[in-house]
Amino acid sequence: MNKHLLSIHDVTAEDIVRVLDTAESFREVGTRVIKKVPALRGRTVVNLFYENSTRTRISFELAAKRLSADVINFTTSGTSVAKGESLKDTALTLQAMGADAIVIRHSSSGSPLTLTRWVHGSVLNAGDGTHEHPTQALLDLYTMREWLGYLEGLKVAIVGDIDHSRVARSNIEALNKVGASVLAVAPRSLLPEKIEEMGVSVTASLDEALEWCDVLYLLRIQMERVHESRFPSLREYSLQYGLTDTRWSRLKRKPLVMHPGPMNRGVEIASGVADEVEPVITGQVAAGVAARMAVLYDVLGGPGE
Amino acid sequence: MNKHLLSIHDVTAEDIVRVLDTAESFREVGTRVIKKVPALRGRTVVNLFYENSTRTRISFELAAKRLSADVINFTTSGTSVAKGESLKDTALTLQAMGADAIVIRHSSSGSPLTLTRWVHGSVLNAGDGTHEHPTQALLDLYTMREWLGYLEGLKVAIVGDIDHSRVARSNIEALNKVGASVLAVAPRSLLPEKIEEMGVSVTASLDEALEWCDVLYLLRIQMERVHESRFPSLREYSLQYGLTDTRWSRLKRKPLVMHPGPMNRGVEIASGVADEVEPVITGQVAAGVAARMAVLYDVLGGPGE
Amino acid sequence: MNKHLLSIHDVTAEDIVRVLDTAESFREVGTRVIKKVPALRGRTVVNLFYENSTRTRISFELAAKRLSADVINFTTSGTSVAKGESLKDTALTLQAMGADAIVIRHSSSGSPLTLTRWVHGSVLNAGDGTHEHPTQALLDLYTMREWLGYLEGLKVAIVGDIDHSRVARSNIEALNKVGASVLAVAPRSLLPEKIEEMGVSVTASLDEALEWCDVLYLLRIQMERVHESRFPSLREYSLQYGLTDTRWSRLKRKPLVMHPGPMNRGVEIASGVADEVEPVITGQVAAGVAARMAVLYDVLGGPGE
Repeated sequence: MNKHLLSIHDVTAEDIVRVLDTAESFREVGTRVIKKVPALRGRTVVNLFYENSTRTRISFELAAKRLSADVINFTTSGTSVAKGESLKDTALTLQAMGADAIVIRHSSSGSPLTLTRWVHGSVLNAGDGTHEHPTQALLDLYTMREWLGYLEGLKVAIVGDIDHSRVARSNIEALNKVGASVLAVAPRSLLPEKIEEMGVSVTASLDEALEWCDVLYLLRIQMERVHESRFPSLREYSLQYGLTDTRWSRLKRKPLVMHPGPMNRGVEIASGVADEVEPVITGQVAAGVAARMAVLYDVLGGPGE
Repeated sequence: MNKHLLSIHDVTAEDIVRVLDTAESFREVGTRVIKKVPALRGRTVVNLFYENSTRTRISFELAAKRLSADVINFTTSGTSVAKGESLKDTALTLQAMGADAIVIRHSSSGSPLTLTRWVHGSVLNAGDGTHEHPTQALLDLYTMREWLGYLEGLKVAIVGDIDHSRVARSNIEALNKVGASVLAVAPRSLLPEKIEEMGVSVTASLDEALEWCDVLYLLRIQMERVHESRFPSLREYSLQYGLTDTRWSRLKRKPLVMHPGPMNRGVEIASGVADEVEPVITGQVAAGVAARMAVLYDVLGGPGE
Repeated sequence: MNKHLLSIHDVTAEDIVRVLDTAESFREVGTRVIKKVPALRGRTVVNLFYENSTRTRISFELAAKRLSADVINFTTSGTSVAKGESLKDTALTLQAMGADAIVIRHSSSGSPLTLTRWVHGSVLNAGDGTHEHPTQALLDLYTMREWLGYLEGLKVAIVGDIDHSRVARSNIEALNKVGASVLAVAPRSLLPEKIEEMGVSVTASLDEALEWCDVLYLLRIQMERVHESRFPSLREYSLQYGLTDTRWSRLKRKPLVMHPGPMNRGVEIASGVADEVEPVITGQVAAGVAARMAVLYDVLGGPGE
């Protein structure tokens, strides 16, 4: 991989496969009693989180600690952000303190790229606005490969508010690169304007998608968007785009159901179905630690001197 | 001990004594320059705190770090709880990330037990509602044994709002198991309805208790309860159930005075008395780290292979 | 050094030079791939922060971790402070838990000294009210020596609200001890009443100071003070005491420009000038980690047994 991981857009299919392979070896570390390798001993990884995301922060923190790196958590609450410190000043400070990698989550699309202008270390995008969330896509592909055995030719339906989803954007990019087919399932109002240019087919019918897909990827509904005019009501959404008990039970060939978590039970997915597919979804979480270990290892270049 | 530590109710006298003995050897580690043993290297301990408690969180964090485990702090502020994530989803996430032990503090009695349904790792109760706070009882018994040399036959008076106290509940269970006698000192309105069934004697007279006891255990007054109708006024409480200078000075045989901290000086205890008994109370804090090391070591089963 | 670092007032010139020399050797550690030495393995360092300061907290945290110490962060948000716990109770608790060093930041001048009455371990002042911020002075002197090669005879102009600045106070003490000359640059309303007794010359003219000085040290304007009556308006301040483009460009001999950060661009310093002097200011940040490593190493007395 390159020095940074800013987006899946930037990386090649070979990069993706290499990270997935590395993640596979780290996945095994997570099952040991002593879940630790000395690969990044003495490196400093900073979690710079301008948005709350305990899951993602902990996943990166564990990944770094299992590689024996030192981890510093820098979250917005109680920071210089309140003092009006700019991203640039924070970046220069972390750079000066010797951060080897900065993991950044920010509500503004493009902040990770901006950050690279000011630091010598590696920058890892942990989600920027509606742009990308590349490690999510890597852990998702890891999970698909783990459960189904292949990626090339895989048929993946992504359901939900694709327009606002960095998870969708990163997955679409990644799936295209490794030769999978993607079908977007959403009303037109929740799709980016030129989605077809992203190499994606479109349908408004979840049932049609279910007939076709090997993987059904349900996006999380952002509750704060539900009151926007272009968003259907929750009830309407659930009826048309939710994986209801009825839909699930009448399927002969069940796809692999995935979700970035946490699930809104009763909205994207019926509670009973959620319980049934739980092992896949928690498998994504486990893959997250392994994938982030692989990315940290990849960008920080191994054991060093 | 078992895999979990959910309550003192679940454990045997032998379990308690074994943990106290183990704590004794770890107590010594805390006095070394290098306060660290490699016993739990590479294990992941998660502090999952739904209620603020810096003391308890730090005590567990230090205990885990002195055993060389990796510690992740997961507190409610700034977490998925705000996103409406259920305890179940959080549990499955931590499980998937490979948490070897989850230390949970929660306002809802029984949450630690509930948690065990979803995780393979160990669950340690760090205080659940008004139910139990088992490591507090262990550190308290450790302190009693350390200062007085024995537990069997020991006479312990517990003073205060026993009805709402998880500390009292765990101590009563533990003291009963090791053969100590417990006297509850409180107005009827602050006692559980069937307290005698817990094997406890009752008095409303602190002076009577002081004549009898070897250990006087003062509970912390929860200031937010003081305005409830069944609670006496602070002044009245202090007069009847506070360890005032007068009470203390006229005692010929002084009991060991204990308190879970932080003390409300002038309420449960006069400030001058508090200063005098400080070494015992800070001794409880020191014992807390050792007792939690012992519990973590006990449930995680040693160096493992 | 002594056991504690409470103020520069307490230490000797020899102490200062020794710490700077130690910092120099640790500065090199920060440039290695493996930024870690085992010097303080198994020691417990507590960051006890009653005021928000992510930069300073992270700097101490990194310093302690690079010396292999265990670090506990204890910040006011979500702590016993809300429960009305006194500094004394907190101190006794941390003491009992075996804290080898407590790094304290507090809005009340003198709190670090008070803290030493209750703990056996070392106390490091990370900024107390308007009193002192000794590690800031040490990193500043480190930076001056690094860039200019000497301290004795150095001419340092300090600009801004010296009366409320612990940074200024610690720097003045330190510079005096090592034989540098200090010129305070501020309107009388922003100076302590008896500043001349601190061995400092005074001027109200920044231009005069610029002619004279080797180092121009710009203090950060505390925005919350700007509305106090004795404070000039921001615009007026910037015109009279700001390092504007005009002032900077007409200087033949440019001094070393320093700032404790984060800079208020357009107030203390024009944005273009800030960019130009950035390497020095981020150099201060890097020196901060090294200086704090040196202080921790100094007070905790080396590898121990």
